[in-house]
Amino acid sequence: MQVQPNWLKQRSELTPDRTAIIFANEHLTFFELNQKARNMAFQLQTFIRAAERNTIAILLENHIETVIFIHACFLSGCKLVLLNTRLTKAERDFQIKNSQASLLVTEEKWLEDHRQNCETVLLSHLKSLKADDGDLLFEIDLAETATIMYTSGTTGSPKGVEQTFGNHYFSAVSSALNLGLSDHDKWLIALPLFHISGLSALFKSVIYGMPVILHKRFETEEINRSINEHRVTMISVVQTMLTQLVQSVNRSPESLRCVLLGGGPAPLKLLEDSKQKDFPVYQSYGMTETSSQIVTLPPEYSLAKLGSAGKPLFSCEIKIMKDGKPCEPNEHGEITVKGPNVMKSYFHNQKATEQSFQNGWFLTGDMGYLDDEGFLYVLDRRSDLIISGGENIYPAEVEAVLLAHPSVKEAGVTGTEDDRWGKVPCAFIVRRSWINEEELLEHCKKKLAKYKIPKQIYFVDELPRNASNKLLRNKLKNLL
Amino acid sequence: MQVQPNWLKQRSELTPDRTAIIFANEHLTFFELNQKARNMAFQLQTFIRAAERNTIAILLENHIETVIFIHACFLSGCKLVLLNTRLTKAERDFQIKNSQASLLVTEEKWLEDHRQNCETVLLSHLKSLKADDGDLLFEIDLAETATIMYTSGTTGSPKGVEQTFGNHYFSAVSSALNLGLSDHDKWLIALPLFHISGLSALFKSVIYGMPVILHKRFETEEINRSINEHRVTMISVVQTMLTQLVQSVNRSPESLRCVLLGGGPAPLKLLEDSKQKDFPVYQSYGMTETSSQIVTLPPEYSLAKLGSAGKPLFSCEIKIMKDGKPCEPNEHGEITVKGPNVMKSYFHNQKATEQSFQNGWFLTGDMGYLDDEGFLYVLDRRSDLIISGGENIYPAEVEAVLLAHPSVKEAGVTGTEDDRWGKVPCAFIVRRSWINEEELLEHCKKKLAKYKIPKQIYFVDELPRNASNKLLRNKLKNLL
Repeated sequence: MQVQPNWLKQRSELTPDRTAIIFANEHLTFFELNQKARNMAFQLQTFIRAAERNTIAILLENHIETVIFIHACFLSGCKLVLLNTRLTKAERDFQIKNSQASLLVTEEKWLEDHRQNCETVLLSHLKSLKADDGDLLFEIDLAETATIMYTSGTTGSPKGVEQTFGNHYFSAVSSALNLGLSDHDKWLIALPLFHISGLSALFKSVIYGMPVILHKRFETEEINRSINEHRVTMISVVQTMLTQLVQSVNRSPESLRCVLLGGGPAPLKLLEDSKQKDFPVYQSYGMTETSSQIVTLPPEYSLAKLGSAGKPLFSCEIKIMKDGKPCEPNEHGEITVKGPNVMKSYFHNQKATEQSFQNGWFLTGDMGYLDDEGFLYVLDRRSDLIISGGENIYPAEVEAVLLAHPSVKEAGVTGTEDDRWGKVPCAFIVRRSWINEEELLEHCKKKLAKYKIPKQIYFVDELPRNASNKLLRNKLKNLL
Repeated sequence: MQVQPNWLKQRSELTPDRTAIIFANEHLTFFELNQKARNMAFQLQTFIRAAERNTIAILLENHIETVIFIHACFLSGCKLVLLNTRLTKAERDFQIKNSQASLLVTEEKWLEDHRQNCETVLLSHLKSLKADDGDLLFEIDLAETATIMYTSGTTGSPKGVEQTFGNHYFSAVSSALNLGLSDHDKWLIALPLFHISGLSALFKSVIYGMPVILHKRFETEEINRSINEHRVTMISVVQTMLTQLVQSVNRSPESLRCVLLGGGPAPLKLLEDSKQKDFPVYQSYGMTETSSQIVTLPPEYSLAKLGSAGKPLFSCEIKIMKDGKPCEPNEHGEITVKGPNVMKSYFHNQKATEQSFQNGWFLTGDMGYLDDEGFLYVLDRRSDLIISGGENIYPAEVEAVLLAHPSVKEAGVTGTEDDRWGKVPCAFIVRRSWINEEELLEHCKKKLAKYKIPKQIYFVDELPRNASNKLLRNKLKNLL
């Protein structure tokens, strides 16, 4: 039961003429996508050692060629590392080295960035190569790692989340059991493919036989036009996108039957506005480690169970733990989850893996509770995680960069409310020697992705700490 | 990934108020079904040894209590042997012994039949027992055997097909990926639950969160009434049922979106009539060993690909083999299949299991071919299998019974066309000593289920045989 035919190959045999992907004016059927992925797999094989499970890193924007390349990697038996285009060179260098990628496939603008660390090739060059037919891998082993995505976590040092083919398969299947599945379904993705919420749609596409309407980025007008033109039924969004969508129209587009909202609970006002305009919003909870959503709240509960992320997907479970014991309903504790979509491990990081699993349960680090009816409420994302426009920002990581500056003695980072992004990071600094905000921001820009750079820096005399000198991030705002 | 929460238990937690099952005037939600199954599991535990994987045989008609009992078995960690109520005592005795069942649960009319071989209890008695709460098994291991169903096969001696929880899970999931899944779906079953086409709906019910409308038997008027009353969307039928349904109305009931037709290809006339009346017929191919359909043909192809059973379900594969080599398109050979819904093995029958699998492919024994586009055409069911009203009849089994009579020297059985049942068995006999048709039928009645008894017996001088004296069943009809 562990081995299945390659999903794209089989889909191309079962429903060759159905649309697989639409991007701008381009349009591929499953048959065409399979042909192109095969060709690209042969081109890729001019760079890699045959008969090895090579690890390929990609640093690519959303594009139809990116989709083709992702499938080409699986057909070549490669593991895929998906690099976030918003990170700095230094952040990505770490991930490239850590993942032991043997090849980086990228675009013109990043061509020179990582050459020192990894053989680099332009996707446009790769696809122009003449290549002989090679050996393709027409089977998928559910236990094998398919993709690696990096997430920073509590310590601030990024960990590679190993998602297996089985994780992606069960994620797609459990999502279908939850949201239903129709011949008319079309899923719009304007989230980056290097995030699980974007990438997972590609697996759904081949497993369901469903078109994905891919966009490079989220531009409200363009998205509305696309929804209406293609009669999109499903769309994945983060809070910022939903806000813009809801503001832009008087009523939810007729064809939409599911707006899957990730990235933290939405504010009441937004949910009310969505409801009033008939947007079928499914709140959800998930993370890179659960290979997409693991908990969802159907629209009929969105106001009655306000603030809840819903119930687990089929085959998935939630347990709230406190002091090593399961909590009673309504008792607060750490959210732990289990299910066939939960990642295998952190890549080459046995310590982090061991710390994250207990008796087969994954410890999310997030706090929450279950109500009497089993609905999950998420209280705090792990380690004061700041979710900004759908991107995760870990305070510890930003603090580490700030502390690396010689003039900084202590640093504390927390999220503040922002109309557009939900939250943005701001920093509290105790100086060792004189430095101004501008200089410190300049320092951050070299080391941190733009969205991680504090929007505000406050210089203070001391930071709130507990008796054991641990920084109390949730008290930082009191300094304002 | 191998272990999941018990399906009924989880479904009852996720969607407690949804309807699980409707039978006549009875109606249970998933919450109620789970409660009743738990209670019955405790009652069952007064009969079985705790902490063992007990094997329980059931000889029950379609009834809401049968559904409850089936789930109770899984909650108690038991394997289930589903006995065909249409078989003779002798046929069932073989299956009870062979499966090593430790308990038979049945109804009044069969209470005395198998007492000598197996501890027997009435379901009505069992459910009246006072029982303390015991230990339930809240997990399902996909690799474990869930059910055993007997099928006769080519040799005439019945083999127990071991279907695992994984077989049932992937069958339900692949079926949903093929037929789609909606909140409004309701599946009507008027096929016996001891056949995989009936039983599989119970797994779909808990995995999808979908109501099953269960009927004791197929009575056309009653089924039409039920479809309209409950707004049934899906129904499983065999050819006889479809014929009656189509004849009974001017137009397919509005709510129906899928009529899943099993049991061999349908005649052109029936397909044309169905099409004309807008019945959404999905032809299919499957067997007990594939835990329900493994190949289906969507309605849009039903006439263009007339006689085809369609394409495999997702994660499933077909290969046509001849002389140990895969056939070219349109070349005839043996149908072999592979997929996560293909049974684990024949129970305690290593020889039959080994003969049926080759490099992970299951050899169906059926002949067929794939056309240029990969559509399967089934030519002959294995060993001249006779499908009569959805029941499988193996000529070898009937011949063995006939040959057991001292007056019979040679016997050959084949199927002849029948308006009502599709096919019925008829026998060709070379006598050793004088016997008439009536006496021989009397002999058959003692050993064979009613539907297996030849509808016609012809006495002939010799049977058609090849040079090695092998009976040529396909030439029997020439004797008429």
